[in-house]
Amino acid sequence: MSDYRAPVEEMRFLIEEIVGLSEIRQLPGCEEASEDVVSAILDEAAKFAGEVLAPLNRVGDKTGCRLEGDTVITPPGWQEAYHQFCEAGWGGLTAPAEFGGQGLPNSLGVAVEEMWNAANMSFALGPMLTTGAVDALLTAASPEIKSIYLPKMISGQWTGTMNLTEPQAGSDLALIRTRAQPQPDGTYRLFGQKIFITYGEHDLAENIIHLVLARLPDAPAGVKGISLFVVPKFLVNADGSLGARNDVRCVSIEHKLGIHASPTCVMAYGDAGGAVGYLVGEPNAGLKYMFIMMNAARHAVGVQGVAIAERAFQQALTYARERKQGRDLASGEGPVSIDRHPDVQRMLLTIKTRIEAYRALAYYASGLFDRAYHHPDTKERELALMMGELFIPLVKGGATEMSIEATSLAVQVHGGMGYVEETGAAQHFRDARITTIYEGTTGIQANDLIGRKLMRDQGATLMRLLGMVETTCKELAGSGDADLAPIGAHLAKALAAWGEAARWIGENLKGNILGVFAGSVPFLELSSRVAGGWLLAKSAQIAKRRLSEGVGNARFYQAKIASARFYADHQLPQARALAQSIRSYDATTLQAYASALFAYD
Amino acid sequence: MSDYRAPVEEMRFLIEEIVGLSEIRQLPGCEEASEDVVSAILDEAAKFAGEVLAPLNRVGDKTGCRLEGDTVITPPGWQEAYHQFCEAGWGGLTAPAEFGGQGLPNSLGVAVEEMWNAANMSFALGPMLTTGAVDALLTAASPEIKSIYLPKMISGQWTGTMNLTEPQAGSDLALIRTRAQPQPDGTYRLFGQKIFITYGEHDLAENIIHLVLARLPDAPAGVKGISLFVVPKFLVNADGSLGARNDVRCVSIEHKLGIHASPTCVMAYGDAGGAVGYLVGEPNAGLKYMFIMMNAARHAVGVQGVAIAERAFQQALTYARERKQGRDLASGEGPVSIDRHPDVQRMLLTIKTRIEAYRALAYYASGLFDRAYHHPDTKERELALMMGELFIPLVKGGATEMSIEATSLAVQVHGGMGYVEETGAAQHFRDARITTIYEGTTGIQANDLIGRKLMRDQGATLMRLLGMVETTCKELAGSGDADLAPIGAHLAKALAAWGEAARWIGENLKGNILGVFAGSVPFLELSSRVAGGWLLAKSAQIAKRRLSEGVGNARFYQAKIASARFYADHQLPQARALAQSIRSYDATTLQAYASALFAYD
Repeated sequence: MSDYRAPVEEMRFLIEEIVGLSEIRQLPGCEEASEDVVSAILDEAAKFAGEVLAPLNRVGDKTGCRLEGDTVITPPGWQEAYHQFCEAGWGGLTAPAEFGGQGLPNSLGVAVEEMWNAANMSFALGPMLTTGAVDALLTAASPEIKSIYLPKMISGQWTGTMNLTEPQAGSDLALIRTRAQPQPDGTYRLFGQKIFITYGEHDLAENIIHLVLARLPDAPAGVKGISLFVVPKFLVNADGSLGARNDVRCVSIEHKLGIHASPTCVMAYGDAGGAVGYLVGEPNAGLKYMFIMMNAARHAVGVQGVAIAERAFQQALTYARERKQGRDLASGEGPVSIDRHPDVQRMLLTIKTRIEAYRALAYYASGLFDRAYHHPDTKERELALMMGELFIPLVKGGATEMSIEATSLAVQVHGGMGYVEETGAAQHFRDARITTIYEGTTGIQANDLIGRKLMRDQGATLMRLLGMVETTCKELAGSGDADLAPIGAHLAKALAAWGEAARWIGENLKGNILGVFAGSVPFLELSSRVAGGWLLAKSAQIAKRRLSEGVGNARFYQAKIASARFYADHQLPQARALAQSIRSYDATTLQAYASALFAYD
Repeated sequence: MSDYRAPVEEMRFLIEEIVGLSEIRQLPGCEEASEDVVSAILDEAAKFAGEVLAPLNRVGDKTGCRLEGDTVITPPGWQEAYHQFCEAGWGGLTAPAEFGGQGLPNSLGVAVEEMWNAANMSFALGPMLTTGAVDALLTAASPEIKSIYLPKMISGQWTGTMNLTEPQAGSDLALIRTRAQPQPDGTYRLFGQKIFITYGEHDLAENIIHLVLARLPDAPAGVKGISLFVVPKFLVNADGSLGARNDVRCVSIEHKLGIHASPTCVMAYGDAGGAVGYLVGEPNAGLKYMFIMMNAARHAVGVQGVAIAERAFQQALTYARERKQGRDLASGEGPVSIDRHPDVQRMLLTIKTRIEAYRALAYYASGLFDRAYHHPDTKERELALMMGELFIPLVKGGATEMSIEATSLAVQVHGGMGYVEETGAAQHFRDARITTIYEGTTGIQANDLIGRKLMRDQGATLMRLLGMVETTCKELAGSGDADLAPIGAHLAKALAAWGEAARWIGENLKGNILGVFAGSVPFLELSSRVAGGWLLAKSAQIAKRRLSEGVGNARFYQAKIASARFYADHQLPQARALAQSIRSYDATTLQAYASALFAYD
């Protein structure tokens, strides 16, 4: 069992200095986010995460959920925690005030989101999915649907789900078969089976609002024939009270590697005559709506990666400080706590600095979306949106892959105790493993990065980003600072590799598409690694400035500089290797490789 | 659930062409290993692994072991399988004929060992530990002890354990407290608690022979005061029959992340007056004996890494060939099986080629030990032993770290199904996670590599190895072959990085020991990565030769060339990044890094 203490100082630094909340709070609709409000919310959330949610993480893993009839029973203590969560209004932090939310910016919400996930990832998934469903309804639903569902979903009285996957349709939603039969009264009856539905059924809230992708009878084949429906567990009467039980049921829950307390449901629609559903937006536009909200959902999973890595890091650091074993290599003194051993330091620093890099990416992206939604200037909004969307696969793909390595290293720091479930380190490793899979695997993120985010503007947004990194490199090189200049040198080399890889992709998209996509995940890894290093370098720049100004916590700023340097020394050199690997892929060698698999035929 | 089919063709290729069994079978004591015997044993073992052991892997994971009183109950079907295993004589394959073994060379034994572990890692751990105990007794025990215990341990009638760890003494055996009280009759009474004892108790065999590290009353402090004792679960009468139950008991078993069917026991010695034990070898020499046998035990865990990765690979490949999802990127055809997607190909090829590299390392090392034990020439024996011992940390540390990545990628290939325990992919991921921890963590292996294997001869053996790699580079470059020359070019660059890192370590050992050891795991990673690439390059050379001779399976040889090329293109470029990271460590930056951790104080 481990405690969780939210890294509030680091979060505040990122929000204020890297995201630039001082700018964001000037934007129309973001005025509420005063420095005081931000401080109060971070402190309150840290308290709730540490005192209420974190202590339930272990019982959630051990007990898990169970299905009784068609009801899912959550672990002991979870109902109470959920009610406290709703009462405090945490569910509506960034939701529009119009529907009862607090309308605070994403760049504050991201920190709070990280806290919930670090404290208790299985718990946090419920509100996360509800937020996703709220976003989808905000995007596309009629005023009537919005007014019926949004206030209660935002308050947490009802929760939401996203029903996309079917047994034959995972990454490939073109294969969806669930069908929606129009009724004379304008409603629909849905028939089909959905799998991997997170919080598809549970006992935390009085109603569950399912958003379901399904096909109309006359729908075109493939992704252009998918519509979005809202299907409540209990029908809602005109006065807002709950009506009849709808024909949607959880028929089983998965036994999973991790996130045991997050019920992953198989949902049956229409076994008894059809589940009543209501069309959201236009017919056959379901996937378009999904894509709009998917950026937010993917960002949230990236934040999960940061969060679970942070939790694992804190536990590993605590253990390393307590466990005495072996002698100090320099002085011979012993036994010493293992955080004195250079290899343990290497592991802890690797985890810590990688977390910091991906946290910076995730928070920075949130700030871009705040600007995209609130900036008064259309052009600025457009630029911020394009950049924010480019960041999504880096955050989702990069931070989640990092979380697997980080939680694995955290197990390693524990030695044999890390392999014993009682210690709790293994839970983080198991929990983290889903993050590279759901909301689109890392491969899907890499497809999105190249096939969508790069190709839609011929790489213009990426080039803009590379230009920003180059500016930082020049500043660092020109600083003449003994700490900053070496960071700049590493960053410049990594940037060159990133640029080469990007150019190679541009040149090869036509003639060597298989080669380009074979290297797409390495390109995502390269991009997120260097972009993270850039934000750490910027953090070091700012820390230097604050130190010279003599304001703030000097030890915190010194640590930021050390983090950036460690990352530059040990994480950025991989950029060249990744670029070289990417540029070695071509369709011909892929053919040869396919034959390498032959031996198992 | 997945099948396991041992990669016999690959194994035979390695044994014959890379290890050079044709040479080894000329050595005195290795004559039995004729081509026919090797073929027969590989085929029989493959059958036993695939048909008997593999089908029990899943029930082992699901059911696990349970403790009833002080008895551990193994999963259904395991007793029968174990009896079949013993009847077939598998336990004694490489054990000396003098004690009932078959006396076959390690370079054949390694393949069989891989099969057991791939089929069922939890099962294989029992025989693996017994072999370790047998090795320890062969090293140091008196003829009397040998004659009492070895034949029944080699036949599998009795099993063996290694009792090193105590709660306060994990990696640091200097802290061992278990004590041994001399008795007037020349025996000892042992008192203490040991933890993490693999197969410390079970219901597979009629007796369990514990090898226990403990302190004599007058022992010096630290590692020089540790003695080795044999402590049987049941005392053995003069006629070899079983006598009284000894005062050693399993008091609990761990609930672990994986290897659920391998009981990990807390053993209590002497709770009822003292466990009867017999001194093995000289007093206070226990750790020395452990180190002698530890090379073999560590090698075996490295082979486990290869094995579990292979099992995971086979399952992922099968799934990728069956699962239809998405369209062919080039032709637009769809849905196609996902093995057509370049990113899935990248994952499968990464797993496969990394397995091949580390398998080659492990098998090559076995051949070195065969030469070290059997070569008639003292100098040759000495050289082979030094080289073999240098390989141990590369095999153990490198192959096990690889297994974590490989089993994780294999989960990833499965998408959401990989996270569901029913699929079985997650089990391999969980099982593999122990391999970088037990028999010395990767950090301990890296200490061994630098602090022992490099320092004891000032890097002479490593330089000899680098010279061998250089020779291969020159041959590849001079071949003028369109396949081999590019492999040689990548290998030469990686070799240069390896050499630079090694020189830097040599130069920094005196003044910057903390920096050297901070980079010790990256150096292990670099060394094993390049050494593996070297053996793949040699495999490609041989494959080319066989193809030009027109002998053997052409498609297998083509695949070997493709593997070497893929690995050279995508795995060797990391060598420079690792070297750069290693060379960036120094004591000063470590100080700065320590302050980076401060923020959590």
